[in-house]
Amino acid sequence: MSPEEFRRQGHAAIDWIADYWAGLDDVPVLAQVAPGDVRRSLPTAPPEAGEPFDALLADLDELVVPGLTHWQHPRFFAYFPANSSPAAILGDLISSGIGAQGMIWATSPAVTEVEQVVVDWLAQALGLPEQFRLTDHGLGGGVIQDTASTATFTALLAALHRASGGSARDTGVGATKWAVYGSSQAHSSLVKAAMMAGLGSECVRAIEVDPATQAMDVRALELRLADDIDDGWTPVFVQAAVGTTSTGAIDDVQAIAEAIDGTSAWLHVDAAWAGVAAVCPEHRDRILAGVHLAHSIVTNPHKWMLTTFDCSVLWVQQRAHLTEALSITPEYLRNAASESGAVVDYRDWHPQLGRRFRAMKLWAVLRTYGLEGLRAHIRSGVDLAAYVEELVADDERFELVTPRSLSLVVFRHVGGDEPTLAAMHALNASGVAYLSHTVVEGRAAMRVAVGSWRTTRADIDRTWAELQRVL
Amino acid sequence: MSPEEFRRQGHAAIDWIADYWAGLDDVPVLAQVAPGDVRRSLPTAPPEAGEPFDALLADLDELVVPGLTHWQHPRFFAYFPANSSPAAILGDLISSGIGAQGMIWATSPAVTEVEQVVVDWLAQALGLPEQFRLTDHGLGGGVIQDTASTATFTALLAALHRASGGSARDTGVGATKWAVYGSSQAHSSLVKAAMMAGLGSECVRAIEVDPATQAMDVRALELRLADDIDDGWTPVFVQAAVGTTSTGAIDDVQAIAEAIDGTSAWLHVDAAWAGVAAVCPEHRDRILAGVHLAHSIVTNPHKWMLTTFDCSVLWVQQRAHLTEALSITPEYLRNAASESGAVVDYRDWHPQLGRRFRAMKLWAVLRTYGLEGLRAHIRSGVDLAAYVEELVADDERFELVTPRSLSLVVFRHVGGDEPTLAAMHALNASGVAYLSHTVVEGRAAMRVAVGSWRTTRADIDRTWAELQRVL
Repeated sequence: MSPEEFRRQGHAAIDWIADYWAGLDDVPVLAQVAPGDVRRSLPTAPPEAGEPFDALLADLDELVVPGLTHWQHPRFFAYFPANSSPAAILGDLISSGIGAQGMIWATSPAVTEVEQVVVDWLAQALGLPEQFRLTDHGLGGGVIQDTASTATFTALLAALHRASGGSARDTGVGATKWAVYGSSQAHSSLVKAAMMAGLGSECVRAIEVDPATQAMDVRALELRLADDIDDGWTPVFVQAAVGTTSTGAIDDVQAIAEAIDGTSAWLHVDAAWAGVAAVCPEHRDRILAGVHLAHSIVTNPHKWMLTTFDCSVLWVQQRAHLTEALSITPEYLRNAASESGAVVDYRDWHPQLGRRFRAMKLWAVLRTYGLEGLRAHIRSGVDLAAYVEELVADDERFELVTPRSLSLVVFRHVGGDEPTLAAMHALNASGVAYLSHTVVEGRAAMRVAVGSWRTTRADIDRTWAELQRVL
Repeated sequence: MSPEEFRRQGHAAIDWIADYWAGLDDVPVLAQVAPGDVRRSLPTAPPEAGEPFDALLADLDELVVPGLTHWQHPRFFAYFPANSSPAAILGDLISSGIGAQGMIWATSPAVTEVEQVVVDWLAQALGLPEQFRLTDHGLGGGVIQDTASTATFTALLAALHRASGGSARDTGVGATKWAVYGSSQAHSSLVKAAMMAGLGSECVRAIEVDPATQAMDVRALELRLADDIDDGWTPVFVQAAVGTTSTGAIDDVQAIAEAIDGTSAWLHVDAAWAGVAAVCPEHRDRILAGVHLAHSIVTNPHKWMLTTFDCSVLWVQQRAHLTEALSITPEYLRNAASESGAVVDYRDWHPQLGRRFRAMKLWAVLRTYGLEGLRAHIRSGVDLAAYVEELVADDERFELVTPRSLSLVVFRHVGGDEPTLAAMHALNASGVAYLSHTVVEGRAAMRVAVGSWRTTRADIDRTWAELQRVL
């Protein structure tokens, strides 16, 4: 592709995206395909000769788009939002063009240093405690990971390194009975992390939650810790959820920190979805209470903060635990800057070696929206969810299952599981909107997770009207 | 950003990339900054109000570009290439615009199915054995991972699952003495994988290599296996390198497979860099010999196959080992399609849950270049490296350290380490080209890894002339 051709096709790709977004309102949110439909529509072998990029764009419209569930649709309310935004897209596009590797500082210094700056900006934007920030004399710092799953796994490795006195990296987790704690509502990545770290799923204690709030029962945690320690287990990692996936429940981080005080456990705060709401001062007390006592915290700008996937930011109080747990230096990566200790080599902050210039997209979001724009975005999601909450309250056929949490509303049909799930499936099948379900205290519920920058009150109205129609 | 503004700024971003590439020839390959320069040039706090995207582009030129080492520069010969290309950039741009999550089939079916098609296309393009392909009745399949580090780690988890009879995922790696094998030249990610999986770095046996070829001494592997088994170790994972990072050495996969036959070890082929060269029939015998006996193989289109980072493809003979090792299904991910068994849920094929539509960029590369274009690209790199080899042979001050491997030439100054490293550092400091070093059999060497689609014979000439000048 010549430079002129790249410009022409690049402009066409940008226009394709603008047109795709403009047309989203008119397509079903949920893909209307059966397993294998898309696969069967594509050739079974790669082409021998090259084709113009236009051919791909044409196939995209005809073969791929009908098979997509549209996460950027204004009436996508399932799971959690995974905002893409103009600023992030263009920031990431620039990153692709530069095509630099930031595995160590020396491989392209600006990749590391822009990331240091923007994760620190984000820490300030959210009002995180000072100890998580990378300052010249501090011990902490942040890093962009791909997902909160990876961030949680990485934090667990740092915890094991710390609790084992460094032996885990050399001789493994061995026969020590390590125990990992989270509430029964903790994200599934906690169990996956324990499996991947060689601890196994059975070491993860699913601590019961308060039935009303779905937050961890900290007294139950205390009892379990005491029992486990009596039984020869070593608590290594406790995860507090600030915004669970199921209902947006917020654990009491302060109380959890107090409960584990005196044990060898690392306290990790999973604020993957809710954490970014701390950009608004009015949410900060609730989201950050007790976070100063945590060893690490993760939040995902790629969920509700407009930063196209993937961008999950992990901050740690003591970066040395991460880097000591993960650092290996083969000869071909040795260099004077690393050995001087004057630089950060981010490959020691996560499982991967190679790394993309992901800071570009977060930088673009923080600058293009500014803190004012980000607060307006979060407030819009919260306001629209409050509106959903009102609609639920005003309809006697529905009831809230848990209190609204920020922009997440969890509710059900008063008739029970069957009408709840039937209504949700019918709404989803209509293509008008897409909701996902959960189970709370044994009963099915549907979730409306607002958060797209494209969603308006009219989208809520249209969704609600369709829900009425299918009841 | 309004749709019109997105179009305008998007076109500007595309043009910025085209201009960046056009200007690369005139800038130093290696960043000319000291630690902290870029960081100090940026504001210490995020902006309160949003700024136009143009402001970011301006700062990019002024503050960021001077701090980059330019991986897409035509005279970047360090490490291995990490090709970005017009087709991949635009494919990934489309993926950002769509912003869909492919964690499970149901979250956006086309994301999964296009990936299934393109990794199968790539398997065909490379001539991989049939068992790695995802067919309706086969057991294998491929997946796009972020890096070969992650792919290796994932393969190790699958190996542990298999060797433990499934107990590793439930009760951990425990007190079993698991042993992991690779040559002394295996990539550092092998040791990191063992550390992350809870086995510890000391369980990794660095098997000696043949001094001339730097390929694993398979007899030494056999002896070590026998000793380890006698000592109560359980071999779980053997990595064969097809193209080591240091010198491009290629292990004898067939002989390794025979050596481990009868043990419980999983055979993983790390062809991260060299694997894509199998798109050319003339390299296939060497690269794929014995691969049919492997349980998994990884190669990175994001290195030498034009597919902008990140895109590392892992294929396994039995996908069930992966999915059984990693699958967890919380309520909110339960769905009819997954439970029918008719679909693939890629979140069970790697550590992360969330996943980007990375298949778009690989699809764009395979279609836009076609197999002919990809072969021409690989051949160009090999031909240029052969030219470097000639230049080395014709200059009595230099000598090859190992035979050229595909597009990698490893050589040194006959005067020893000091003149070798001094020449390389002087060349790098000149900004004309960027090479990286290695140590082979205790002696320093410099590496020229060709592979950018932008590199021409004139770039080699200019690099060589500068090397002569600084000697």
